[in-house]
Amino acid sequence: MLDDKEIMSLALRLARKGEGKVSLNPMVGAVVMKNGNIVGSGYHQKFGEPHAEINALNQAGKKAKGGILYLNLEPHSFYGKTPPCTDSIIKAGIKEVFCSMLDPNPRVNGKGIKKLMDEGIKVNLGLLADEAKRLNEVYLKYITTGMPFVILKVAQSLDGKIATLTGDSKWITSEDARDYVHRLRDKVDAVLVGSKTILKDNPGLTIHEKRGRNPKRIILTANGFIPPNSRILCDNKDGKTIVVTSKITPFLKGCGAKIWEIEKTKSDQINLRKFLKKAGQQGIASILVEGGQETFTSFLKERLVDKFYYFLSPKITGEGLDTFGDLKIERIKDSLELKDLTLKKFYKDYLLIGYPDWRN
Amino acid sequence: MLDDKEIMSLALRLARKGEGKVSLNPMVGAVVMKNGNIVGSGYHQKFGEPHAEINALNQAGKKAKGGILYLNLEPHSFYGKTPPCTDSIIKAGIKEVFCSMLDPNPRVNGKGIKKLMDEGIKVNLGLLADEAKRLNEVYLKYITTGMPFVILKVAQSLDGKIATLTGDSKWITSEDARDYVHRLRDKVDAVLVGSKTILKDNPGLTIHEKRGRNPKRIILTANGFIPPNSRILCDNKDGKTIVVTSKITPFLKGCGAKIWEIEKTKSDQINLRKFLKKAGQQGIASILVEGGQETFTSFLKERLVDKFYYFLSPKITGEGLDTFGDLKIERIKDSLELKDLTLKKFYKDYLLIGYPDWRN
Repeated sequence: MLDDKEIMSLALRLARKGEGKVSLNPMVGAVVMKNGNIVGSGYHQKFGEPHAEINALNQAGKKAKGGILYLNLEPHSFYGKTPPCTDSIIKAGIKEVFCSMLDPNPRVNGKGIKKLMDEGIKVNLGLLADEAKRLNEVYLKYITTGMPFVILKVAQSLDGKIATLTGDSKWITSEDARDYVHRLRDKVDAVLVGSKTILKDNPGLTIHEKRGRNPKRIILTANGFIPPNSRILCDNKDGKTIVVTSKITPFLKGCGAKIWEIEKTKSDQINLRKFLKKAGQQGIASILVEGGQETFTSFLKERLVDKFYYFLSPKITGEGLDTFGDLKIERIKDSLELKDLTLKKFYKDYLLIGYPDWRN
Repeated sequence: MLDDKEIMSLALRLARKGEGKVSLNPMVGAVVMKNGNIVGSGYHQKFGEPHAEINALNQAGKKAKGGILYLNLEPHSFYGKTPPCTDSIIKAGIKEVFCSMLDPNPRVNGKGIKKLMDEGIKVNLGLLADEAKRLNEVYLKYITTGMPFVILKVAQSLDGKIATLTGDSKWITSEDARDYVHRLRDKVDAVLVGSKTILKDNPGLTIHEKRGRNPKRIILTANGFIPPNSRILCDNKDGKTIVVTSKITPFLKGCGAKIWEIEKTKSDQINLRKFLKKAGQQGIASILVEGGQETFTSFLKERLVDKFYYFLSPKITGEGLDTFGDLKIERIKDSLELKDLTLKKFYKDYLLIGYPDWRN
């Protein structure tokens, strides 16, 4: 017989199936148990479509009565794109609910649980809470701050260079690692680079392999300069290119891309916090920051990085372009540590996935 | 029943037991088989003591007659510290020999095999040759070039720094990784740093944990300057400190350390090739190069590195002291690739062990 943790793990695995399809909603999975058997299961499959618990309850049908419901996130209790899930749970006759965590969405945040308890349903909160938080890390950042979850994607040589002294950067990593980046792009709402990267590398920032949809493409350029013949402007049939600038030039006005005007900081850079607020308002819940050095450094200095995808290619380049600029770190013990690391091995390269430890 | 590969693997594992105890000899293991059973096994345990095949034949005794001998290296056929092993093999009545590789020592290099074949013993050469070469990589470099096997040990932050902008470098890696370095030091004949590292970090370069013996300590200082109060001079009771310089100052003459005078290159650095020749002549078969940037860079530019122990600490320091200086690499595809990599995980840090691919 499955124990509570195993059942919740199943709910979490089901939830994960919605990845990339439910934004701006959270990923949720649901399992209905009755007399030790799974009588229903489901997940939130697509933004705007039924929620996980509804799919699971529908599958269970009459067997849901007197059953136990496992959910990785608190059910919502308000009328949104769909009716309150709490009502359906009560109506189905569920007697007990296991829930990994509250939904910090201000419109829920305990109200869903309270409604269930008011109806005499027993509620257990906190089972596999850490896993549930990781699963919905993007949603949680977005719903609590209004700003997107920021992922820094670095691809560097072993000795910390993203280009040689002459500026050559093709390619640091091998093909399989670069393919993986395309799959990453498929999962985020937007990718972002600084204008120097456009100037130097002229990336298309699209998903070349036609595996998945293109995210929005954001270019940061405080002074408003972008080469007119850059791919990011020329290959913009889908209209997903957004230029973020503090100076709207006549060229930018007619370049075909969306233009967001964001004020500058005292150090003549785009105010990243204001930019992220704007991105959040525009429904962007996750951004993959792909370079270059200045852009990486600005996000780190402002402590606006939520996660790292750090590719290491086992090659030595010697003096060249550093991954990061001056972070004002004077002592090794004040370095920014990466925590909760996962290592992935490619044919040649390594990928460290981790989170910044901002304690210092 | 064990097959030939499995038996040779056993010989290789036995050979490895001599690590750190048989230099300048190779590590050799031996297994004697008779009618599908192991009747004798042994390894070269200590420099000057009996060779592997003698230990195995002694254990087999009369059962060796008509048996098959497995050896990871060609037996020697000359009178050295011990009589020729080939004679003992012939005398014991061995009918067939499996041997992973020839011994490139000019005094052997095929002569041992020939002697066995001349006596009608069947010889099979090449079984697990790659593994056998790796096992004796230090010996093979030394015996064929007269120069020590050079291991570069790097400990850097994820973004390629060995110190912050202010010069702080304590500590990049955690305690368990640093302990591992002490065990590495126990296995090499000498450790080496440049004089700037003495000036900045003042390392003792000893094995603090009393686990194993101290290797020789070599300091490179082209201009002859070393701080008089440096630990490497003050903690020199064992007399293992060697100063390598192009300028013997009056201070150096009286500092208590051994002094090697090596001429400078045109770029005012110690001629590393001449230094390594001298080290080889002095019976140093392996050197662990521990820093700093200039020393690493010189060894790499001269292509005098045989192996890397590359520690990566998952922290970001930003602008600081690079691991390597200018290597005159202009294109990413001309980078120095590391091959045959092994990854080791410590509590926090990672260690990549690999070999330079000098093809470019």
